[in-house]
Amino acid sequence: MMTADEADRAARRVMARSDALAEISETPGQLTRVYLSPEHMHANAQVAQWMQDAGMLTWQDAVGNICGRYEAASDGAPAVLLGSHLDTVRDAGRYDGMLGVLTAIEVVDWLHRQDLRGEQAVEIVGFADEEGTRFNITLLGSRGLTGSWLQGWLDCQDAQGVSVAQAMVQVGLDPTRIAMAERATEAFSAYLELHIEQGPVLEQQGLALGVVTAINGARRLTCRFSGEAGHAGTVPMSHRRDALAAAAQWMSFVEQKTQASGPEQVATVGTLQCEPGAVNVIPGSVTLTLDIRSPNDAEREALLQALLAEANRIAAERGMGFSHDIFYSIAATPCDAQLRNVLATAVSEVQGRALLLPSGAGHDAIAIAERWPSAMLFVRCEKGISHHPAERVEEQDVALALRAYSGAVRQLI
Amino acid sequence: MMTADEADRAARRVMARSDALAEISETPGQLTRVYLSPEHMHANAQVAQWMQDAGMLTWQDAVGNICGRYEAASDGAPAVLLGSHLDTVRDAGRYDGMLGVLTAIEVVDWLHRQDLRGEQAVEIVGFADEEGTRFNITLLGSRGLTGSWLQGWLDCQDAQGVSVAQAMVQVGLDPTRIAMAERATEAFSAYLELHIEQGPVLEQQGLALGVVTAINGARRLTCRFSGEAGHAGTVPMSHRRDALAAAAQWMSFVEQKTQASGPEQVATVGTLQCEPGAVNVIPGSVTLTLDIRSPNDAEREALLQALLAEANRIAAERGMGFSHDIFYSIAATPCDAQLRNVLATAVSEVQGRALLLPSGAGHDAIAIAERWPSAMLFVRCEKGISHHPAERVEEQDVALALRAYSGAVRQLI
Repeated sequence: MMTADEADRAARRVMARSDALAEISETPGQLTRVYLSPEHMHANAQVAQWMQDAGMLTWQDAVGNICGRYEAASDGAPAVLLGSHLDTVRDAGRYDGMLGVLTAIEVVDWLHRQDLRGEQAVEIVGFADEEGTRFNITLLGSRGLTGSWLQGWLDCQDAQGVSVAQAMVQVGLDPTRIAMAERATEAFSAYLELHIEQGPVLEQQGLALGVVTAINGARRLTCRFSGEAGHAGTVPMSHRRDALAAAAQWMSFVEQKTQASGPEQVATVGTLQCEPGAVNVIPGSVTLTLDIRSPNDAEREALLQALLAEANRIAAERGMGFSHDIFYSIAATPCDAQLRNVLATAVSEVQGRALLLPSGAGHDAIAIAERWPSAMLFVRCEKGISHHPAERVEEQDVALALRAYSGAVRQLI
Repeated sequence: MMTADEADRAARRVMARSDALAEISETPGQLTRVYLSPEHMHANAQVAQWMQDAGMLTWQDAVGNICGRYEAASDGAPAVLLGSHLDTVRDAGRYDGMLGVLTAIEVVDWLHRQDLRGEQAVEIVGFADEEGTRFNITLLGSRGLTGSWLQGWLDCQDAQGVSVAQAMVQVGLDPTRIAMAERATEAFSAYLELHIEQGPVLEQQGLALGVVTAINGARRLTCRFSGEAGHAGTVPMSHRRDALAAAAQWMSFVEQKTQASGPEQVATVGTLQCEPGAVNVIPGSVTLTLDIRSPNDAEREALLQALLAEANRIAAERGMGFSHDIFYSIAATPCDAQLRNVLATAVSEVQGRALLLPSGAGHDAIAIAERWPSAMLFVRCEKGISHHPAERVEEQDVALALRAYSGAVRQLI
């Protein structure tokens, strides 16, 4: 494990490098760096340089991930894989993804300075696309490693009509060679990802670090209440079939029922449209989205069924229709129990106790966990703000994270 | 009062003329006829011809209302004014407004066939603009008669940037002569307006006709709940300041409290926008409109204050902000008690009883009542549907209305 002094120096460098990477953006004054853009290639080159400075061999793989290897005591041993992503949302913060890559480089640099070689190698990957900002499909980088790219993805287009295949050619990648990015199962013994929490739990608990129990599964639905539009002045309250009034009743139930279902489940109505949508017209129909997540698939499903049953009951009681359509569905990803324990031990050592918490957001680890044992270390971020320029982490939290991270990696190799 | 046979024949003609007027539209296959359009002039010319056929002298006034006079026994006597509007919303029904003008012509025609002259004359006005479809300002026709045009209205522009003044010139009106449309107080002793109910109350009561007690006053507000946006996956339910959840709680209160406040008050949330408005983001702020109406200004104000107090309470409880802005305000217009009695007597004679009900929608009578005693007769429309091509009235209801209307006018002149 790094000493406090080593960790302080390394954390200072991580903060500086986060700032430097944030300059590599397509939008001056904002951070936006998307898959297969010139900025993607520029960031990869910069990160490769830092990996090399830390004693790693580097290469860019067939889907555009930047990769580095710090060899084991004996060449060709399996590796512990560390990483996160280097792409961003539009007008992003500078730590979401990048912090995991930059801290991993410091861990390797720390090994390298001591010329410490383990029985296993350490590899680092800066994933090329996790957010899905450009093509509206996510985890393109990690699914390159796992070999689970779908053929149709090459035809997906960005807002300008450029396909993934065309964009690959534009940056010098060969879309016919995607399969080359896939790694053998025996290549890695474990995957660790350090990431900002993107939520307020650690801050509320007064803790810098947490260990992820599972990445929440999610369902996303479009829901619709269908009543009857009418004149806002002439239809008495008792004769109305107001779709927005029905939706309001249901949204209050969604909030209360989800809150009552335990601290780890969340449900959110994020968008809502009224039709016809005029100040003097009773809404005839309302379309809204529901996003529901839980680290436990069975509990999430039970909650969702209860919410839908209530929506149908409210609609029936009011003489109107309710329909729903699930347009996104992903199962929960439990973290590997043994790796979780390694992380929890290291975290306990540096902050007295290890808080275990689920991850509400998705991460590259979702894809990697399909092939290799995976676990995640969370770092507190200010007010839980993420996907926003105000995203912030404290340098001393990063230092603490580096101590725990280096301890865990040392333990594993 | 017309005989049943006379009323049946007149009703048949009203239905045919409603169909004929509906053909005068700027949109083929739909009915859209807006202020100062070629279709406005075309409809005025057609209505003037029908007025002349009923023995009236006709003229178009300085703001584009089409007017007709059926003289009293002695020339220059005051008149009972009958009327409604000839303009429409976009993709309108064919009875809203027009039914009041066409039935008035039948009443005069009935007097004319008998060569029956009263102590008072009868005038009819087909108002040029009640809906405000083109310039977003309403009651331009009736406010010409009352002399309450605001000077700034001439500069108001339509969606193409054409001002009211320019549009007047385009159809041969002189915007400097608007004041010529104003009528002397002694010109009219009373104003009666027949109109479709535009609501479901008469249909629910199984009655063709109703007498209006008052035209509801209204307030329209823009309201805003300001919480905090956040990641839909990472922020636990207990840490959220979800503006839509707050709005939902309030909308349920609005519905319940208004329903409990008596059968004549209505409150409607017709539009709602979430910010930022993404499936995976907790809404940070919600903007919505509230439309609240009552025939009784004091009761409406008390209800509104109770609703706003609850909004503030909910916002405070949830640690968020609430603000509101009243952008439209109109007092209730009570109908003249004596004219109401005349209408109620005539209605009772033809349908056994006279239902009294408030008008939830606005009408030309709001403006006219500022200068002259006014009252309104409502005719049932199918399912209360209005401002829609499905707007429908039954011919036998029109016949019954004509009997009551002719009886009331005969009584007054």
